[in-house]
Amino acid sequence: MEFRIAKAELIKALSRVQGIVEKRSTNPIIANVLLEVSEEGLRVSATDTEVAFVGRYSIDFVKAGSLTLAARQLFDIARLVPTETVSFKLPQGSFQMEITSGPSSFKVLGLAAEDFPVIPDPGDLPGFKLDSGAVKALVDKTLFSISSDDTRSGLNGAHVEVCEVAGRNLLRFVATDGHRLSISGQPFSQEAEGEVRSVLLPKKGLSELRKLADEGESDGEPWEVAFTDTQAIFQRGNIAFSMRLLEGEFPDYSQVVPSQWQRRLVVQREALLQALRRVSILAPEKSHPIRFAIEEGRLVVVARQPEAGEAREEIAAEIEGADLAVGFNARYFLDALGVMSGETVAVEMGDSLSPCLVKPGEGDSDESFVIMPMRLE
Amino acid sequence: MEFRIAKAELIKALSRVQGIVEKRSTNPIIANVLLEVSEEGLRVSATDTEVAFVGRYSIDFVKAGSLTLAARQLFDIARLVPTETVSFKLPQGSFQMEITSGPSSFKVLGLAAEDFPVIPDPGDLPGFKLDSGAVKALVDKTLFSISSDDTRSGLNGAHVEVCEVAGRNLLRFVATDGHRLSISGQPFSQEAEGEVRSVLLPKKGLSELRKLADEGESDGEPWEVAFTDTQAIFQRGNIAFSMRLLEGEFPDYSQVVPSQWQRRLVVQREALLQALRRVSILAPEKSHPIRFAIEEGRLVVVARQPEAGEAREEIAAEIEGADLAVGFNARYFLDALGVMSGETVAVEMGDSLSPCLVKPGEGDSDESFVIMPMRLE
Repeated sequence: MEFRIAKAELIKALSRVQGIVEKRSTNPIIANVLLEVSEEGLRVSATDTEVAFVGRYSIDFVKAGSLTLAARQLFDIARLVPTETVSFKLPQGSFQMEITSGPSSFKVLGLAAEDFPVIPDPGDLPGFKLDSGAVKALVDKTLFSISSDDTRSGLNGAHVEVCEVAGRNLLRFVATDGHRLSISGQPFSQEAEGEVRSVLLPKKGLSELRKLADEGESDGEPWEVAFTDTQAIFQRGNIAFSMRLLEGEFPDYSQVVPSQWQRRLVVQREALLQALRRVSILAPEKSHPIRFAIEEGRLVVVARQPEAGEAREEIAAEIEGADLAVGFNARYFLDALGVMSGETVAVEMGDSLSPCLVKPGEGDSDESFVIMPMRLE
Repeated sequence: MEFRIAKAELIKALSRVQGIVEKRSTNPIIANVLLEVSEEGLRVSATDTEVAFVGRYSIDFVKAGSLTLAARQLFDIARLVPTETVSFKLPQGSFQMEITSGPSSFKVLGLAAEDFPVIPDPGDLPGFKLDSGAVKALVDKTLFSISSDDTRSGLNGAHVEVCEVAGRNLLRFVATDGHRLSISGQPFSQEAEGEVRSVLLPKKGLSELRKLADEGESDGEPWEVAFTDTQAIFQRGNIAFSMRLLEGEFPDYSQVVPSQWQRRLVVQREALLQALRRVSILAPEKSHPIRFAIEEGRLVVVARQPEAGEAREEIAAEIEGADLAVGFNARYFLDALGVMSGETVAVEMGDSLSPCLVKPGEGDSDESFVIMPMRLE
């Protein structure tokens, strides 16, 4: 194997896989990236066997070949080499890659390409087209609600489904930890017919997808999203990212989303967010209980910590329905308000024991958050 | 107690003390700041009983009084309040401070001012005048060499002395961990006569002093530095920072600094720094051994890791003396080169077992670094 590559291209290739490789495994090869060189260019693959990434990059091709190298070490080298172009050469039959850049040279021992886990080529699958902004929104609005409780496998991922909301076809992510639930839907253009079954996407896969989507927001090229029996595959330009679907059963969340309300308030989202941040300073740790009191024309939020004091905020609100006092975990409101997109937010409540629905106060974006109340003394 | 204070002034007052207060003590009051209000303004004090800080701030004075409040919580409140001015009021006989800012209000329970450790007022002491840049240089060039080994109490701080170097009076900091030694001297203007004895300054105190010096670099107001039998005191404008002197005996470091050399090389500091960063990627962890080989007109640096490979760098150098190969901990060179100030650096060596002296290749700044070699296989 022999090739030359631009330093910037090499850095891009290796920065994308740092979160994917797994250093603490009993199988040391998954801390490595697989480099495959052919006349078509350089293919860089990384996997922890649950999520997998393949990217293709431009090189000056000299000779074909393949080898795996430690991902972290190679990234450090790429960032620090002194020249704009870096040369790679693997002598025939050797596992020691020679990397040179001006007065710097490295010989890095790798592991055989044959021992690297096979990452299946997804090929052309019928799927959805979503832009990077839509992928980011789907992940951002649901990731924080995914349960970390390993005993509830059905809640350890984001549930994905296709649904029709107000006449639009949406790809929807839903996540819950049993105390709060997030829903986010985005319009898509479907390429092929065929039934779409519900799938469950793992947290690590979503976090890594989020980083890749960030990178792709500027050029506008859409993601092609497809699901096989075992994998979710996200492809865009020269990169393909896949994650293994989780096996658990996601609950029927529609039963949890309140369809009626007895009190409804509309407030400025940013004002409520800032007020809750302040009140949280005095909320007891762990479950961050705060008290919402709906009064005439305003929402009063109070946190109390017997040994430390209390905080109180008044927020102007448009209110429908009778007065009510109800307790919440401040964290759940902060998480939801922090990722919402509109200027205003609507909070719909029943009584002090029923779930509360938080959604945009204006517009037709498909985002809603169900938050269970807390019993306060 | 009652006063109003600008949000920015309050944030400044509280940000300065976050690193000083100690949250994990058996004495909860040292996680607090002492607020003392008089017609002269607000005095904010913090201490972990080893280091202490007192700052004076402008307020709209209403009524005198004092109380201690949790430093972290008060800082969070200061940063998040919605108005440019914040009101504080402590009802007579109460320990619950009322803090209000527009629609936000907090009642924060404090601890009695009487229970706060006494921070002695240093008053006017004879001492040295140093600008913030000089204080930063003294700390930056020595802090990393201080030993963390608690069994060697004489090495757990930076040794401070007054000395004459090339006809200039300097305040000098010296630190060592037994493997390397840092020396940094800065000129000062002395205010008063009197003998200056050697003292030993603790790591935490130096780190906090470093942050305060950073803040003071723009306005040019000098620090007044004085030493009592037990304290080092750094005063500047409205702030006074003190640290308790360590008790150990610092060794006679002059014996460690080589006064002669057999090989001397002068290289571009930045080029050597970058080369060593790259080579270090392949240096074995823990002691980061690398090999310097002095050859005709160049320095060759090599790192080797049996199971990973090797890295090699060539750096152009002006060389006097015969060829030599010697091993070093790369970390020690990186630490020293990273804080030095000149364009070039001179490295003076004896044989492969003698200490090496690193100092600026040009100029007359008093900074030098002694690095012990390592035996390589």
